[in-house]
This record gives sequence, C-alpha cells and structure tokens, in this order.
Amino acid sequence: MTQRFSFSLHATDGKARTGVISTPRGDIRTPAFMPVGTAATVKAMLPESVRATGADILLGNTYHLMLRPTAERVARLGGLHRFMNWDRPILTDSGGFQVMSLADLRKLTEDGVTFRSHVDGSRHHLSPERSMEIQRLLGSDIVMCFDECPALPADDRRVAESMRLSMRWAARSKAAFGDRPGHALFGIQQGGVTRELRDESAEKLREIGFDGYAVGGLAVGEGQAAMFGVLDYAPDMLPEDRPRYLMGVGKPDDIVGAVERGIDMMDCVLPSRSGRTGQAWTRRGQVNIKNARHMDDPRPLDEACTCPACRSYSRAYLHHVFRTGEIISSMLLTWHNLHYYQDLMEGLRKAIAAGGLDAFVRDFHALRAEGDIEPI
Amino acid sequence: MTQRFSFSLHATDGKARTGVISTPRGDIRTPAFMPVGTAATVKAMLPESVRATGADILLGNTYHLMLRPTAERVARLGGLHRFMNWDRPILTDSGGFQVMSLADLRKLTEDGVTFRSHVDGSRHHLSPERSMEIQRLLGSDIVMCFDECPALPADDRRVAESMRLSMRWAARSKAAFGDRPGHALFGIQQGGVTRELRDESAEKLREIGFDGYAVGGLAVGEGQAAMFGVLDYAPDMLPEDRPRYLMGVGKPDDIVGAVERGIDMMDCVLPSRSGRTGQAWTRRGQVNIKNARHMDDPRPLDEACTCPACRSYSRAYLHHVFRTGEIISSMLLTWHNLHYYQDLMEGLRKAIAAGGLDAFVRDFHALRAEGDIEPI
Repeated sequence: MTQRFSFSLHATDGKARTGVISTPRGDIRTPAFMPVGTAATVKAMLPESVRATGADILLGNTYHLMLRPTAERVARLGGLHRFMNWDRPILTDSGGFQVMSLADLRKLTEDGVTFRSHVDGSRHHLSPERSMEIQRLLGSDIVMCFDECPALPADDRRVAESMRLSMRWAARSKAAFGDRPGHALFGIQQGGVTRELRDESAEKLREIGFDGYAVGGLAVGEGQAAMFGVLDYAPDMLPEDRPRYLMGVGKPDDIVGAVERGIDMMDCVLPSRSGRTGQAWTRRGQVNIKNARHMDDPRPLDEACTCPACRSYSRAYLHHVFRTGEIISSMLLTWHNLHYYQDLMEGLRKAIAAGGLDAFVRDFHALRAEGDIEPI
Repeated sequence: MTQRFSFSLHATDGKARTGVISTPRGDIRTPAFMPVGTAATVKAMLPESVRATGADILLGNTYHLMLRPTAERVARLGGLHRFMNWDRPILTDSGGFQVMSLADLRKLTEDGVTFRSHVDGSRHHLSPERSMEIQRLLGSDIVMCFDECPALPADDRRVAESMRLSMRWAARSKAAFGDRPGHALFGIQQGGVTRELRDESAEKLREIGFDGYAVGGLAVGEGQAAMFGVLDYAPDMLPEDRPRYLMGVGKPDDIVGAVERGIDMMDCVLPSRSGRTGQAWTRRGQVNIKNARHMDDPRPLDEACTCPACRSYSRAYLHHVFRTGEIISSMLLTWHNLHYYQDLMEGLRKAIAAGGLDAFVRDFHALRAEGDIEPI
C-alpha cells in the first residue's frame, strides 16, 4: 500500500473521469460517493456494513466532533479511525459550513468565527489554524480548508467578499496544515453562481496549490439547473490531475449530472437520512415505504438489488417496521440506500471506463421515468 | 432434521438439566434463553446478528402481531419466519398476558377477553380458540395456551378463580390446537405463590397433556425471593420428560437461580430493552454507559467478551454514541447484552453437563460481587 497521497486518472468519457485516489489507508475508486458519518457513526449502520455497500471512504463532520466528544478526546483515544472502528480513509470537512447552518450567536471576523454550541450553549472559536488542528487531532486523511459559504441567492458583492475571505483562509489553512506525508489538504473554490468569481477563486487556489480541489458553495438552495450551470464550467478551472470534489451533493440525478461534468467525489446525508424517514432510492426513483400500497406487497424494494433489505425482506415487512417505529426500519432502509448509491457509482465508473457513459445515463433516466413497479 | 417435536435430557446436576429440544426448524439447546422479537423484530438487531449471539429460538408476541401487521396478513405473506427473516424455531405467547398489561377497556368473560387496541382503539377479541388460530396463522413452532394471569400480590380466592379459568382455557386451547405434527403446544401452570393452587394447576395440565409446560404467573411483581420460593417446588410438579419454561424471566441472577431449580427455557425483554437505555450486562454486573466515568475510558465493556461491541469499541465510544442519541448505541449494546445472555446459557449448559454447576454458580456470584472494573 502506498505511503503517499496520489491520484491517477484511468479513463475519461467526455468530461467524466474515472480513476483511483491512493492513500496509506486504502484506495478510493472515483467517481466516489462518501457516506456521512457525522458524529463518528454513519447513522443506523455498523462500519463493516457501510464497507459492505462498497464505500471506500467516509466523511466526518468537524463541527459535530469538536463539540462531542471533542477532537482532543478523540486524539487521546487513538484518533477517529480507531474510535469509530473504520480503518479506511476519512475526509473531514472544516466545520465552516456547519457553524453557519447550526451554531448559535455566530460572530465572523477576519480571524475566524466565534459561536455557541447548538448542543449546550458553550462558546467556541474556529479559524483556519484551529480547523487544521482539529482535523489533525481527528486523524483525518483528507483535510478541507476552512472556508465561509453564504447561502444562495446572495448579491455579488456579498459572494465576492466571502470568496476572498475564504481564499485568505485557504492560504492560512495551507500554512497551518504544513507538511504531512500521506495526508491531503483540499482547497475549496467559492464564488456562487458567478463565473468571474469562480475563476478568480480557482486561480487563487491553484496559486496556493492543493492535493485536491472542491467545488464549494453549491447545493445550498440554488436548484439543480443553477448548480449544473456552474458545473458546466467550474471543474474545468481546477487542475486536471487532482481530484475534484463537489461538497454536499446529492440526489442520484444530481450525482449523475455532476459526474458527467467532471466531478470525482461527492458526499451527502441524503441516503442515510432518507433511510430514517422511510424513503428508499431505487433504480426506478423514490419509494415512500410508509404508503399503504406496500402493506401487502411480498416483493422486495428492488428485485435487482443485492442489499440485505432487498434480498431478505418484503415491502410489506419494511412498511410494517417503519409504521411500528422499529429501529430495524432505519437499519435496513439506510443499508439499501447506501448500497444503491454505491451501485450507481460502480455503474458510472464502469460506463466511463468502457466509454459508454451516454448510454448509461440514458438508461438511468429512462428507468426512473418509468417510475416504481405497479402496485399488486 | 427431525420432522417431530421432541425433548431429550442429556445430563442433570442437582435439579438442573441440560438437553435438546428438536424441531423441524432446528434444535434448541437447553437451558435456553429466548430473545424477544415483539413486533417481528428483536429491536435494533438484524436476525442474523441475533443468531450470531447463539440464540436458537425467538419469542414473538401474539398481542402485538395481531394488531400490527395482523396474523392474517403475516399468513398471506408466508408466515412469521419468512416475514421477519428468521428460519429457526419461534415460540409465540398467547396474547393473554399482554392484553392484561397493555390493552384498554378489557372485558373478561368465560369465553375470553374483549379489549381495545392500545395503538388505535380498535376492538378485538381473544379466546383460547382465537389465540390458537392466530398462532397457527403466524406459523409458530411452539404455541402457548391462552391463559389469564393476575398481578401479584392478589388474594388466594382471586388467584384460585383465575387459575381455574386458565385451566378450562387450557383444555379448550388443546382442543382447538388439534393435531399439528412438528408443532408443540405448551400448557401454563398458574396458582400464584400458593403451593396447593400450583399443585391443582399442574395436575389439571398433566391430565390434559402437553408437549411442554410453562411456569406462569411469576415475574409479575412478587420479587426474586418469592419467585425462587415457588420455583423450589413448582417445576417438580411438571412432567420430567418435557421442557419446563419460565415465562418473562429475567435478570442474569434470576436465570441462574431458575436453572438451578430445574427450568429449561426462559425469555425476557431485559437484555434488548436495557441495550436501548444504555444499560449493559457483563460478568461483573450492570454497567451504566451514560456515566461520565466512561467518557475517556479506552477499554471495552468486558475484555473477555467476544461480541462486536467489546471487540471493536471502547467504553468511551459507547458513551459518546449513547449521549449523542445515535442508533448504533442501541445496536451495539443490545448485541452485547444478548451475547452476554447467550454466553451465560452456554456456561450453564456446559457446567451442568460436566457436573460442575455449583462451582459455576459460585464464580458467577463472586465476580458480580466484585463489581465493575475500577475507573481509569
């Protein structure tokens, strides 16, 4: 196994790419979908089950972990991998986005953000330097720059100011990260939906130099059309020989559209969160398992799916355990959703490698357009 | 595999017994602890994980299943085994006990009980005949007679009347059960803590004739001393060549005391319910994982335990996921507790087979008396 972080592109199809990110903790096949393990657990899943779905890497949330159990405690206990029993790569976000969306009484300065915990009201400070320290204490394999991200829509001046602050923070993040062989630091492009600002941000990031580059500030309320509009040009602004990561995306059709536009990595809570609210994602779109139509249905969610929920349980059972509030409902539906997402990524990787992405995407949309199987 | 239900005793040590109950769906090693799968799931566990703890048989609750998803629906879907993905033996209770403890507006007559569902207020009727029908529709391997059980303490007249009604219902249960090769019907001894009534009940049950016999009406508030007082004589009143089942018991020391007194089967929600409230059972007694003393403890719950929670996670992690309300907390602690219970049963079986039960029980109590490991 490699002792360095590296990325090799194996094939392209149009703008879409497939390859492998190598890390000392294992390879990440791209395009990759990263399940979210917010507070040191992918909710309702054991880590060996997450791995069984085909995930090569998890995402952990700096904001949640710094509050509970705290980065220092995780470090004393041997790091996040050991703490949560996941020995493969972990990417951590910088905490910036969730401070803005979850914390109370935020105060933003050039130095960073002071805020109160949404859990117990305690005061905390995050800056590029503190975010790098926390992510180092956690033992993260892929570290994200500390950035600020305005909700969209926002006026150009606000977006530009925020982007420039994030770029100054990116330089400070790089300096604070230092030289850590086997660990990677990713820069985050900002600039909202404004091409010139995206260009300015990308230029600044390339100047600083990172191991990978994220397209940030999307999936924050702008809608799929606006997001794809940015993805039509933003990935091209980033170095071709480094992984490109689209943060916080998304629904299956968002993922397919992003991969078509040259994105290599994504993360989203959607498959796990949906699993806890009775929503299943299949090749035919979304299935709401609480609907009465499933009550007597002996068929699996998706007859072609090989996950435990589809292999061993009927829709009637999944409906029953959801309606009775049983924990196994969250366990099985989350497993199914993560399995479906990883199946989709595997399909995309194979299609790109074979030069058949267009046909794959056509079939993907055609089956979804047909919708769920007819009620019995 | 056998096509008949049978019980063979392999060894005894004092009054304690070890043997095997054979059924077409697999063997049950006795003394056996049956995890409770109330509403077609052992809460927070996949059935393959329940099996991995060493469980040979599950218990299902007629009352819960008749309300949701209903026995008729389970039958249409291929029976409870297929519905919940558990192909080994299932014992179902008769519904009687839970109607009395959970349902609203109960009306008891010679025929049976009319009540309203605690879920949606709908009206239902349970009688010996309907209970047998429901348990047949579910596909239960071991069916329990429909009985009535007063909460203790109760005066002798009330206990005697209730016991005699249960014995008339036992005869009706037997008639309604009919001849079902490979399936077993168990009678339930009643009579509270009064020896003469237990004797009268046992005589009546032997007269009717059953495949196994339960000691009912205990673990309903009388305390361990009173329960052991009854168990000092009640099992001896039941046929030696049939399994003896103590319903709804119990804590680890209840189980050990019951096995010492000649009990072959038990069930209890305690290990699974405790797992959801942060209570772990170990060889050293009870551990409350939410206590702050575990917050920085890198050690497992029990270093000698081979369950996934002990093999791969620290007390600090279990504390963290319990305090943050993560589902994995219920999953891991339930797994540990069920594993501990099955380990205890395996220890009891081996000790009885080797004629060393006294030493086993002495060690069991001695280690518990020492209490949990010292805080770090």
